[in-house]
Amino acid sequence: MLVDSLLRLREYRVPQCEIVELRLFIYSSSSPSPSVTRDVEEKRYLTLRTPFTLGGRGVFLFPKLIVAILATSPALLQPKVIIELIGNSLEMAGKQQNWVLMVTAQSPTNIAVIKYWGKRDETLILPINDSISVTLDPEHLCTTTTVAVSPSFDKDRMWLNGKEISLSGGRYQNCLREIRGRASSIEDEEKGIRIQKQDWEKLHLHIASYNNFPTAAGLASSAAGFACLVFALAKLMNVKEDQGKLSAIARQGSGSACRSLYGGFVKWVMGNDVNGSDSTAIQLASETHWDDLVIIIAVVSSRQKETSSTSGMRESVETSALLHHRSKEVVPKRILQMEEAIRTRDFPSFARLACVDSNQFHAVCLDTSPPIFYMNDTSHRIINYMEKWNRFEGTPQVAYTFDAGPNAVLIARNREVASLLLQRLLFFFPPLPDTDMDSYVLGDKTILKDAGVKSMKDVEALPSPPELKDNVPSQRHAGDVSYFICTRPGRGPVLLADESQALLHPKTGLPKKWTSKRIGNPIG
Amino acid sequence: MLVDSLLRLREYRVPQCEIVELRLFIYSSSSPSPSVTRDVEEKRYLTLRTPFTLGGRGVFLFPKLIVAILATSPALLQPKVIIELIGNSLEMAGKQQNWVLMVTAQSPTNIAVIKYWGKRDETLILPINDSISVTLDPEHLCTTTTVAVSPSFDKDRMWLNGKEISLSGGRYQNCLREIRGRASSIEDEEKGIRIQKQDWEKLHLHIASYNNFPTAAGLASSAAGFACLVFALAKLMNVKEDQGKLSAIARQGSGSACRSLYGGFVKWVMGNDVNGSDSTAIQLASETHWDDLVIIIAVVSSRQKETSSTSGMRESVETSALLHHRSKEVVPKRILQMEEAIRTRDFPSFARLACVDSNQFHAVCLDTSPPIFYMNDTSHRIINYMEKWNRFEGTPQVAYTFDAGPNAVLIARNREVASLLLQRLLFFFPPLPDTDMDSYVLGDKTILKDAGVKSMKDVEALPSPPELKDNVPSQRHAGDVSYFICTRPGRGPVLLADESQALLHPKTGLPKKWTSKRIGNPIG
Repeated sequence: MLVDSLLRLREYRVPQCEIVELRLFIYSSSSPSPSVTRDVEEKRYLTLRTPFTLGGRGVFLFPKLIVAILATSPALLQPKVIIELIGNSLEMAGKQQNWVLMVTAQSPTNIAVIKYWGKRDETLILPINDSISVTLDPEHLCTTTTVAVSPSFDKDRMWLNGKEISLSGGRYQNCLREIRGRASSIEDEEKGIRIQKQDWEKLHLHIASYNNFPTAAGLASSAAGFACLVFALAKLMNVKEDQGKLSAIARQGSGSACRSLYGGFVKWVMGNDVNGSDSTAIQLASETHWDDLVIIIAVVSSRQKETSSTSGMRESVETSALLHHRSKEVVPKRILQMEEAIRTRDFPSFARLACVDSNQFHAVCLDTSPPIFYMNDTSHRIINYMEKWNRFEGTPQVAYTFDAGPNAVLIARNREVASLLLQRLLFFFPPLPDTDMDSYVLGDKTILKDAGVKSMKDVEALPSPPELKDNVPSQRHAGDVSYFICTRPGRGPVLLADESQALLHPKTGLPKKWTSKRIGNPIG
Repeated sequence: MLVDSLLRLREYRVPQCEIVELRLFIYSSSSPSPSVTRDVEEKRYLTLRTPFTLGGRGVFLFPKLIVAILATSPALLQPKVIIELIGNSLEMAGKQQNWVLMVTAQSPTNIAVIKYWGKRDETLILPINDSISVTLDPEHLCTTTTVAVSPSFDKDRMWLNGKEISLSGGRYQNCLREIRGRASSIEDEEKGIRIQKQDWEKLHLHIASYNNFPTAAGLASSAAGFACLVFALAKLMNVKEDQGKLSAIARQGSGSACRSLYGGFVKWVMGNDVNGSDSTAIQLASETHWDDLVIIIAVVSSRQKETSSTSGMRESVETSALLHHRSKEVVPKRILQMEEAIRTRDFPSFARLACVDSNQFHAVCLDTSPPIFYMNDTSHRIINYMEKWNRFEGTPQVAYTFDAGPNAVLIARNREVASLLLQRLLFFFPPLPDTDMDSYVLGDKTILKDAGVKSMKDVEALPSPPELKDNVPSQRHAGDVSYFICTRPGRGPVLLADESQALLHPKTGLPKKWTSKRIGNPIG
């Protein structure tokens, strides 16, 4: 064990460029523990104390880093070996103390069309049923994450949307631990950086993440976030595992994050293993398989404080009398039907399944004690309008689905329908007076163009949809929707090679003064 | 068959006091059909045409009444028999043509605490599970119904809240048929009225019904209405069946009506018979058994058009993947637990069961395709406030339950809690400016007095409830509740002996010009 430790030390990089001291204490196991702090304060030069005692305890002290070694085979602990090690370390410290290595990635959000609700294991985040999602085009909704490593970092730190947040939560720790445990050696000859597999355990990380859409607005920001974090870290640390294994790591950050590791249509297989190794995402079809679909998200105004999905699903598992029946009896059949609907691009089946499953998920929330309400009156109105339109047309034109919030995700069967859908949405939910259309319909603006709506005047001129003809003049609900985002199914995570897109400064490893413009925010 | 018809005719009363004509046509089956209209126009006196043809067709014409007899055994059709019959009829017409016999009853509404949702037989109205309800005090919420019979009525007619409505619907027809089939003879010596059992099939009814609360506002108006109709008709027609059998008849008008035939705590047993004979209500405990309870109803403002409960539950049965599990696996256990909670006056269990079952019923509505939303944002807010308060107190103070609409029915464990509850409700949902408190809190005004609220100024001065202390200043939602009704568990249907409370005029049998004042409307 001592040998191991020494060998590891050989590869160790001194983690501060200002290092002027390096000390080796070898204490006898019978001697009192060293007062390291006092030693550091008192001495400003390299010290090597010998002889070391048989069966003693060694402490290598670097500024801000202590490596303790328990000598089990002290015969191997020769002074010259130690001295050589220290010399090597100092040399490397002089050379490389200054570098920052980083990787930037972009990951999509996803929207479940067969819902995940309920865990069988809270820590490993193992679900009680399979789920299926559509990945949303990262051009319109995505997380960008830069991960950096440097010997100059003295702890793991993270900034979300420019604000530092704590990494102490179990979910972050799980992801960092799992990725570090699978890290491989890397060598960047150009920069003169060499990191051995075992070094990753010691090196600290800086992470900066940015969502180009409102965080915690019910738009799966944590899914995109953890997928992006795991994907970027895996690239940085040269993790050799395939995307499926990465999805199982992202899953431990946020369950639905595992589905954001693929583009197109993705299934999260619940798995059977107690350790969760087979609870991974698989791609059912890529985004090009069914590229007619257009997705419009209605971001619904809400004053209500919402229950987090984590605590919500825990309470459902504990109290709902219907959830177990859903996960055991209902969802397995729907999964098969949904896979078939996707495979055959059968929109009516796809829409029917997505709508009933969204509604059933919210039904289970209502069956929770205390009940959870994610949808509000505006959500209900949107559903009623869509149901009426679909019935009027005789066959579904639009699927709707709602996650743990009031926002509607509407999936139109094609572009023509999407433009009719947007007309309807703007008819029922016009912007408040003096709203710029350009900030009210975001994302793929060509849908707005197809809908023939350029200004508030065009919105006011929109006719009442024919499916309402026999009714009294329809109410319009200005202000009930904050904005719309037009998008489509999209690709999985990608690396951003252009270093100007990094969120961390390449020299300091600290966040750039970011603005939404810098990283090409399509929203707003 | 001819003999039967003649014997029935013997008992027939001539239904118009102005009768001056009575004609008997006996047509040969081979002769052309008589032109009755022309005959009536041409002749102004009694005609008896003989001889009658063997195997012929007879037509008795009274003004506004035609009785057709097919002679199957013509030997019995002797002229003298016919003449005697006609003579008798004319004599009776002279004596009794003028009377109106009527009965007025009052029936309570009820609120289910274990919900009825879903029929196994649409026509007989047989439920898929047992349900339990609390009968509400008819002093505050009730239907008053007057039923009248008179030979001068030429058809069954009904007025609801002063407006004539059609009785052609199957539900009314079922109740009328079932009650008529169980009618007994009556004799009112004073008025000189004698009605034989079999006469009821021929006599027509006038029915006037009035709810002292908004019809179809989700306050179980149809339950009170059909219970009252069946109860009043049974009294009028001297039906000898017990209350349980009557409940099975009321059930065929509106399922939950069967529970309004008893006061206090009532269980509707789903039964097993295909003909529904054992699907009846039983009283679990009278209203005096647990008289601490106070009930406050929040009538929630709603612009939404709601799905009727009839079509709603049909759609749930047809499309919900959760309803069957609820009715088979969940409700039977809850029924036993609720019976026990009522028996032992165990409020925490009562409240817990009532809340989760209300929520599960609405969950099943959401799991219906298309989904049904009965609760709105205001309903959700009320639930959230009650849940927070109950949690804060450590044990339930208030149970909530919602029927097929947004109105909240809140059951407080006792009067002290009710006054705290009303303070909270008025804090969160103050009336709009310039609302008279007296028209904002209806029913049992002593609760308002206990709460110490006399004016809008008192409402404005209400403190934020302590359970919200750690929150930002709470929002108040003026106008989101139309009004509150304070009430309590109450008695079953009763007869109103005082004829001034009848809704029909005792001479004409037509609706009185009613006002809410006349019948002592406690609301408004």
